[in-house]
Amino acid sequence: MTPRSSPCTTSRILAPTAPRRKSSVLRSDDLTDHVTSSFENDLHDQRESHGSYPASLDGIWLHPLTSRIDNQLLRGYELDIKGHFDRIVPVLKQLSALQKEPDFITKAQALAKAELGFTMPLTILEKAWVKGLDMRSLFAWCVFEAYEQISDDFFRCDPLIGAEGGIRSELFESFLLECGFHLLDITPCADGRLAHAIAYVLRLPFSSVRRRSHAGALFDIENTVSRWVKTEHLRYREAKPNPALASTRYLKIAVYHFSSYDPHHKGCAAHGSSAASAASAALMRLRDFRESIEKSFCCGASVDFLLIGIDTDTDSIRIHIPAENSTVDLAAWLDVRDIYCATLKLNAEAARKVIVSMILKAARSGSPDEGMLKFICQLVENNLSQIDYVRQFHKSKYADADHAERFIGVGIGFKEIHLRNLTYFAHLDTVEEGAPDLDVGIKIFKGLNVSRDLPIPVVVRFDYHSNVPGARERAIQDCNRVQRAIQDRYAELYNSGMLHILLTVRDRDQYSPSEAIKSTIDLVVGGSH
Amino acid sequence: MTPRSSPCTTSRILAPTAPRRKSSVLRSDDLTDHVTSSFENDLHDQRESHGSYPASLDGIWLHPLTSRIDNQLLRGYELDIKGHFDRIVPVLKQLSALQKEPDFITKAQALAKAELGFTMPLTILEKAWVKGLDMRSLFAWCVFEAYEQISDDFFRCDPLIGAEGGIRSELFESFLLECGFHLLDITPCADGRLAHAIAYVLRLPFSSVRRRSHAGALFDIENTVSRWVKTEHLRYREAKPNPALASTRYLKIAVYHFSSYDPHHKGCAAHGSSAASAASAALMRLRDFRESIEKSFCCGASVDFLLIGIDTDTDSIRIHIPAENSTVDLAAWLDVRDIYCATLKLNAEAARKVIVSMILKAARSGSPDEGMLKFICQLVENNLSQIDYVRQFHKSKYADADHAERFIGVGIGFKEIHLRNLTYFAHLDTVEEGAPDLDVGIKIFKGLNVSRDLPIPVVVRFDYHSNVPGARERAIQDCNRVQRAIQDRYAELYNSGMLHILLTVRDRDQYSPSEAIKSTIDLVVGGSH
Repeated sequence: MTPRSSPCTTSRILAPTAPRRKSSVLRSDDLTDHVTSSFENDLHDQRESHGSYPASLDGIWLHPLTSRIDNQLLRGYELDIKGHFDRIVPVLKQLSALQKEPDFITKAQALAKAELGFTMPLTILEKAWVKGLDMRSLFAWCVFEAYEQISDDFFRCDPLIGAEGGIRSELFESFLLECGFHLLDITPCADGRLAHAIAYVLRLPFSSVRRRSHAGALFDIENTVSRWVKTEHLRYREAKPNPALASTRYLKIAVYHFSSYDPHHKGCAAHGSSAASAASAALMRLRDFRESIEKSFCCGASVDFLLIGIDTDTDSIRIHIPAENSTVDLAAWLDVRDIYCATLKLNAEAARKVIVSMILKAARSGSPDEGMLKFICQLVENNLSQIDYVRQFHKSKYADADHAERFIGVGIGFKEIHLRNLTYFAHLDTVEEGAPDLDVGIKIFKGLNVSRDLPIPVVVRFDYHSNVPGARERAIQDCNRVQRAIQDRYAELYNSGMLHILLTVRDRDQYSPSEAIKSTIDLVVGGSH
Repeated sequence: MTPRSSPCTTSRILAPTAPRRKSSVLRSDDLTDHVTSSFENDLHDQRESHGSYPASLDGIWLHPLTSRIDNQLLRGYELDIKGHFDRIVPVLKQLSALQKEPDFITKAQALAKAELGFTMPLTILEKAWVKGLDMRSLFAWCVFEAYEQISDDFFRCDPLIGAEGGIRSELFESFLLECGFHLLDITPCADGRLAHAIAYVLRLPFSSVRRRSHAGALFDIENTVSRWVKTEHLRYREAKPNPALASTRYLKIAVYHFSSYDPHHKGCAAHGSSAASAASAALMRLRDFRESIEKSFCCGASVDFLLIGIDTDTDSIRIHIPAENSTVDLAAWLDVRDIYCATLKLNAEAARKVIVSMILKAARSGSPDEGMLKFICQLVENNLSQIDYVRQFHKSKYADADHAERFIGVGIGFKEIHLRNLTYFAHLDTVEEGAPDLDVGIKIFKGLNVSRDLPIPVVVRFDYHSNVPGARERAIQDCNRVQRAIQDRYAELYNSGMLHILLTVRDRDQYSPSEAIKSTIDLVVGGSH
């Protein structure tokens, strides 16, 4: 592991903004051209019917409620982090060309340092003259190094301005309480195309949200009941975040997904690409969770829930507006793209009024309560920015409509992963339980990497509480156990060097990066993976 | 699965007794002769020095605080249940001799019904004329049937008079609160020789105790912290068992073990048969648990703990008396055998006074608080009965000093298992995590069964809360997952028919027996395993 001392790579010049205080500051670098799509056609029709309205400085018409500064911040982060990974193969190709030159090692290290920000493990470079560079190990090594860099940067520099105790998270947590919720617990699908759901699509401070990704958004009920008990206990014992007698609720959100451009093939694999099935299964899980709480505890114990769908092509969401009595109509939802179109030419204040009226109109089962309405308004407003983000920087539709993850993340943790298609995540305690999810990940990476003769990089991670004696050692034991289970299950890949594993742990009680324990890359001298 | 309609097999004539109201009613059946051992020599010396004292009706000198009626009840249960298992091989041997006779099936069924209480699966009997009886399948089938019988009997008839809501458990729970404890959480070693620790050695109503067996008594800290949180939450929310503001504590007991007759070979395998190592490791775990609570929660959160050792040859316990400030001296303990010897000739009242003074004398680190003293006095008194139990019925030392378990229990549950050497228990959620424990069990059963050409019977069990929607289905999925993992891990045994698995689930929310889902025994027609 290379010592980390580089300055924070993402820009620190942007002041944090409150949830409702959207800045109009604009940064014009990296903006791409506006292109036409079906959604864009709708917008075009809107503009035609409403007459012209002023283009923004960069020639892209943005929604009045879009936070341009946030979009810039997030774009900078996306380019920076994905750049770390995407420069690896070109650099390795250059090294391949250089390897027979007499001053290969010097040139290689200079190139790596300049392009990737770290030097290569000498052990591998020094062996190059014998049988050629061990490109597979080098590739896995670089992916692990890049992962460690982003983890380090994330916890040291807070590039998404969402850390605990920061202005954004504190403002958001107050807002959440105002809406009547004392904990926000979100389960997106584990699909890598939803890994940015919290920080990008919903624009929530990551530290204010409990995120538990699961295939098909089918979260574990027993585990979520335990989390609810822990939350309530803290309210009783420490009045955190508010006293137990305050009439707020635990809010559980399930986020399913679908593809508007290729609905029958690029939807949720866990539900056969059917948006209706995905929504229905997620709603049933939410209802079962609430019923579990109501039946297992007395004194009117209950929770609120919300069902949301994400279109993974455009990042626009649809919200199934719940009635005050929590009934939800699966067939009725509010599509934020409709709000976008309807409010594009309005000023901020007028747009917000339309949002409220459209939410109430979409509430087929009955109006939501006041707090839920307020919360949904905020989600809608946040998502408008993301719709523009995809318009601004991804030509209104992601080029990587399918899987394009850079590594597989296995275990419990990965608080620092907030980018679309960066990580295929298998949230698991044991491979035995998580095998179906992990099998899918391995299959995806056979297509992405093995087909190009590159190994599958797997980062194993277990978070622990350093407050608890022996917890770090147990987290390391968990890493080793999972490593053995992965090696057993995918023995052929592992034995042929087509699967490499990095073991990491992280202390939840400190705001510190993940710590690399060891890896399967053979480095007799130097390096520390 | 045979329908259960037989009457409760254990005697229901015995009235429940309160923890301190020990009855002197005597039942003389099944009593064995008194034999001399080293402990018996001590007793003999005592008698010599104190002069003679009256022998009991059956010729065995029992301690004045021994509950003879409880000993009879427990002995009846032991004989009954172990008899279920131990009659299997003799019956199968008889079937083997009968199998070529023309009226074999009629005779076989009559014999099985008379000796075992159930008939055999017709599918297996009917095939006997072709290649001979499939004895391995039949053996596993009988073990599973016997297990189902005892589970059924346990939950239907409450043979140990320890069920929730019963007089004994209610009295004990009041007593526990009087001592200053609102939950009693005990971790004995998972060794089958401690499976009777709660109901026999410590004489506690099983429903009033949270039992979590672990190899080496090394309980899971994170899991126990979660249990603590659930307990405290219930006190805050429902004032159960008492309000959170009442100054009672969660009491965690770890029970290690050793062998007084063969200390270097028959002690705890997880600690290399060293009693000192076992005690030290268990104490460290207890301290770590308390530290976890104290560091993770505010407002003076803490727990009490107690360290106990069991001599698996005599079932006498030794207690490391904790000072009021919870310090424990590993090298100092109170051996209940010493109390037994010192109080054998006294009357009950005088004996109880000696118990208190001996506890206080053994408290090297300082006196325990009043509640803990009261609690320890009760444990001592309870254990005196068990010391006499082993004297009365096992000639002062168990004949099966080593392993002699009848089946392996895998999973979460087995509330009905309270007999020494009945079950090797691997308490696990996944084979991946529990493999070291399970490997030990398989090794033991290779010696016990495979060496005799008999298969290893494994009962998988997952308890669930029927209050939680879908919980039963998830418990069944867990069973199936664990079955697959066992079949993979011990493929050779499984494929050769030397390992059979029964899958069972049980609803924790009802006082109902375990429910057999399926087994690996091939029964094309009839039967339901």
